[in-house]
Amino acid sequence: MAGKYPVSPLAPAAFPALPVIRGASFATVAAGVRYAGRTDVMLARLAPGTTMAGVFTKSSTRSAPVLDCQAKIGGDGDAGAAIVVNSGNANAFTGRNGIEATRAVTSAAAAVLGLPEDRVFSSSTGVIGEKLPAERITAKLGDLAAVLDEGKIEEAAKAIMTTDTFPKGASAEVMIDGQVVRIAGIAKGSGMIAPDMATMLVYIFTDAAVERPVLQDMVSTLSDLTFNCITVDSDTSTSDTLLMAATGASGVRVTEGNTAFIEALRGVMLDLAHQVVKDGEGATKFVEIHVSGAPSDADARTHAMAIANSPLVKTAIAGEDPNWGRIVMAIGKSGAPADRDLISIWFGDVLVADKGWASADYKEADGAAHMKGQELSIKVDLGMGGGAATVWTCDLTHGYIDINADYRS
Amino acid sequence: MAGKYPVSPLAPAAFPALPVIRGASFATVAAGVRYAGRTDVMLARLAPGTTMAGVFTKSSTRSAPVLDCQAKIGGDGDAGAAIVVNSGNANAFTGRNGIEATRAVTSAAAAVLGLPEDRVFSSSTGVIGEKLPAERITAKLGDLAAVLDEGKIEEAAKAIMTTDTFPKGASAEVMIDGQVVRIAGIAKGSGMIAPDMATMLVYIFTDAAVERPVLQDMVSTLSDLTFNCITVDSDTSTSDTLLMAATGASGVRVTEGNTAFIEALRGVMLDLAHQVVKDGEGATKFVEIHVSGAPSDADARTHAMAIANSPLVKTAIAGEDPNWGRIVMAIGKSGAPADRDLISIWFGDVLVADKGWASADYKEADGAAHMKGQELSIKVDLGMGGGAATVWTCDLTHGYIDINADYRS
Repeated sequence: MAGKYPVSPLAPAAFPALPVIRGASFATVAAGVRYAGRTDVMLARLAPGTTMAGVFTKSSTRSAPVLDCQAKIGGDGDAGAAIVVNSGNANAFTGRNGIEATRAVTSAAAAVLGLPEDRVFSSSTGVIGEKLPAERITAKLGDLAAVLDEGKIEEAAKAIMTTDTFPKGASAEVMIDGQVVRIAGIAKGSGMIAPDMATMLVYIFTDAAVERPVLQDMVSTLSDLTFNCITVDSDTSTSDTLLMAATGASGVRVTEGNTAFIEALRGVMLDLAHQVVKDGEGATKFVEIHVSGAPSDADARTHAMAIANSPLVKTAIAGEDPNWGRIVMAIGKSGAPADRDLISIWFGDVLVADKGWASADYKEADGAAHMKGQELSIKVDLGMGGGAATVWTCDLTHGYIDINADYRS
Repeated sequence: MAGKYPVSPLAPAAFPALPVIRGASFATVAAGVRYAGRTDVMLARLAPGTTMAGVFTKSSTRSAPVLDCQAKIGGDGDAGAAIVVNSGNANAFTGRNGIEATRAVTSAAAAVLGLPEDRVFSSSTGVIGEKLPAERITAKLGDLAAVLDEGKIEEAAKAIMTTDTFPKGASAEVMIDGQVVRIAGIAKGSGMIAPDMATMLVYIFTDAAVERPVLQDMVSTLSDLTFNCITVDSDTSTSDTLLMAATGASGVRVTEGNTAFIEALRGVMLDLAHQVVKDGEGATKFVEIHVSGAPSDADARTHAMAIANSPLVKTAIAGEDPNWGRIVMAIGKSGAPADRDLISIWFGDVLVADKGWASADYKEADGAAHMKGQELSIKVDLGMGGGAATVWTCDLTHGYIDINADYRS
C-alpha cells in the first residue's frame, strides 16, 4: 500500500511539471474504497469532440472494467468522454458482481456529467477477488464533478497508485504547422508487470485533434515498442489498461504518419514505461538489455525477455555480481535459436564474453565496476543475423519479497 | 556453496538407506576443483554388460560434458561403463577448452579403468564460464579406481552437491518372476531448476538387465512425468543430465511394458524430483499444483507451470497468504485457454473460488490455516474439459535472494 514502503532509489527527483492539456480536467477524492487517509478515486473529464483509443491486457481472466472498456473503446461520439479510476480494489474475478459494480460506476458518472454511458471508461486496480464497494465511489461523483480542474493531473497520478512508491508523469510538446501541441501522461504500476499488453494503468492526454482509428493505430504500435518491452516480475495483471484521449482543443489536426507527433508520443510512453520499471517492487537497479545479431527481431526479443525475467540474472544484478554465466543460461533456455560459440556479452562497454568464451582481455573487476551503477546495460550479440530488440527490467531483491509476501493492500 | 546455508526445513530426516546395486561401485575424492574441505569428484564404475540411457538439457547453450554424453549415449558395448562427475565448475560456455577438458577427463578415466573412451560419461556442475581444471580431476582417477566400493553411493550423492543443503537419494525393490530387482538413485540440484529437460544431475542404477532402447524409452517417458514437472525458479541449467545404468547383475531381465518395474522406477524418479524441490534455494514450503478440467493435458500443464513459476504466487505462499487472486492472474497470463467464470480453486480441501468468484462458504481463516502447513496443495478446476496435470514447486523467499545475490561458488 502506498506510503508503506520507502520511495524507490530509482525515482525521479520530483514529479515533472506537466503542461495543461486543454479539454482534459481532473478531480480526485478520498472515497475509502480500501485505503484510509489518501485519495483513491480520480475522475477525468474530456471535452466534447475528444477521440479515445486504448490498449488492454490480454489476460484470459481480465477484469470487468477492462471488458467494459474494450466494449466501448471503438465507439464514437461528440459528447466528450470521462475516465473514472479507483485504487485499492481491482474488481477482477468478481463474477456478475463485477459487471454490476462497473455499470454502477460508469452509469452514475454518465448521469452526473451528462454523458452517454458508453463514453464513460473505468479502471480498477488493487486486490483481486473482492467485491468492489461501488457505492463509495458513486457517492463521491457529484463532489468530483464540481471540482474538475485542468491543473490537477498530478493529483490524478497520485490517486491511482497502489504499491507505487512515487507518482508517474511525463509530457512532450510538438510543433506542428507552427503551432504547439501538447501531450501529458500519467501511469501507475510497480508489481505484476510484464509485457504482452498495456502492462499497468496509463492515461495519456493530448490537445491535438486525432481521428479515432489513427489514434488507435498510434497507441497500439507504440505500446509494442514501450510498455510491452518492460518487465518487473513476468507476472501479468488482469487489469492492465492504457487509455489515450485526444481532445482537439489545440485546433491542430494530426494525421496518420505525423512523425513529429509519433516520436513525441513514443517519448512520453517510453518515459512512463521506464518509470514503472524504476518503481518495480524492491528495485534498486534499472537495466537495459539489448540483444542483437539474432535471426529475427522476434528471436532477439525472446532472448532479451528470457534474460530480463530470469530470477538468477535478476538476483545476480541485485548482488552487483557480473555473473555472465547466468546470461548464457537464460539465452540457452529461451527457446529461440542461439549458437553457443558465437555469443558475445557486454556489461556496459566491457566485453565480457567473446564468441563463446570469456574474453581474453576481460578482468572481473571491470565487469563488477559496471554492476555497481544504478543504471546498467547488458548487451548480447548472437552473431547470427540482423534481428535486434531492447527491453528494460529491474533487479530482484529482498524488497520484492518484503512487499509481496505480505501484500494484501 | 555446500555448507554455507542452513539445511532446508523441507529436507528428509536422514539420507535413506539405499540398497547395494550389484555391478555399480562408487568412489569419491576431494580434488579441489573449486571447493576446499569437501569431496567434489565422484567416479561410478558399471560392470561389463551394463546398458546406459540418458536424458539431457535442451538448452541451446548446453555444456561440453552434456554434448559429449549425448554423442555417446546411443552406443553399445559389453565392456561396462563409467561416470565421472565433478562439482564446483560446470565446464559450460568454455569454448574449445570445454571440449578438451571433457576429453581429458573421460580419456584418463577410460585408461585407468580399461574401458573404451566412448563408455565413459561425465558431468560437471557449478559455475559457468570458467575453465575446468581437468588436471585436478585426472590426477585423482587412479586413487578413485583403487577404492571403488558398491556401498559408497551416499558418498557419491554428497560429492556432487553444489548449493544443495542435503544429499538426495531414493530406492525401490521390485519382485519380478519371484526375484528381487533393485533400483537406487541419487540427485543434485536446488537452483536453476525448471523443466523441459532432466532438470539437474541424476544418476539411477538398477541390477535388472534391460536392453538399451527399452531403458531409454522408460527414462524418457518417466522424465516427463517427474523431473519435467518440477520448477524452483523457472531457470534452466546448461548442464542438466540424467543417466541410468542397468547392470544386469541380478540376472533378472526386464522387458518393455513391465509395469511393476516402471512403477518402481517412476517412484524413485518422483522421490528424487520432490527432494530437489524441497532443497529449492530458500524453500520453506513444498507445493503441489494440480490443474484439472482443461481442454487438454498440455493446457493443464501450461496453467500449472504458470502458477508454479509466478513470483507473485510464490511470494504469497512464502507469506502464508491465501491470495487466490494471484492464482487467477497466473491462469490468465499462461496463454492456455481459460474461462474466468468457470474457474474453481482449492487450497488443500478448502474451496476458495467457485466458478468465477469467491465461494459463498469460504472463510479466509480456513485458507490461511492451510497455508501455514509445510506441504501445500493448490487445486484448480477450469470446468472446460478432461485435461489434467500436476506439478511441484516451492515458495520464493528471502533465502533465494540471499543465496543468489552473492552466489559464485
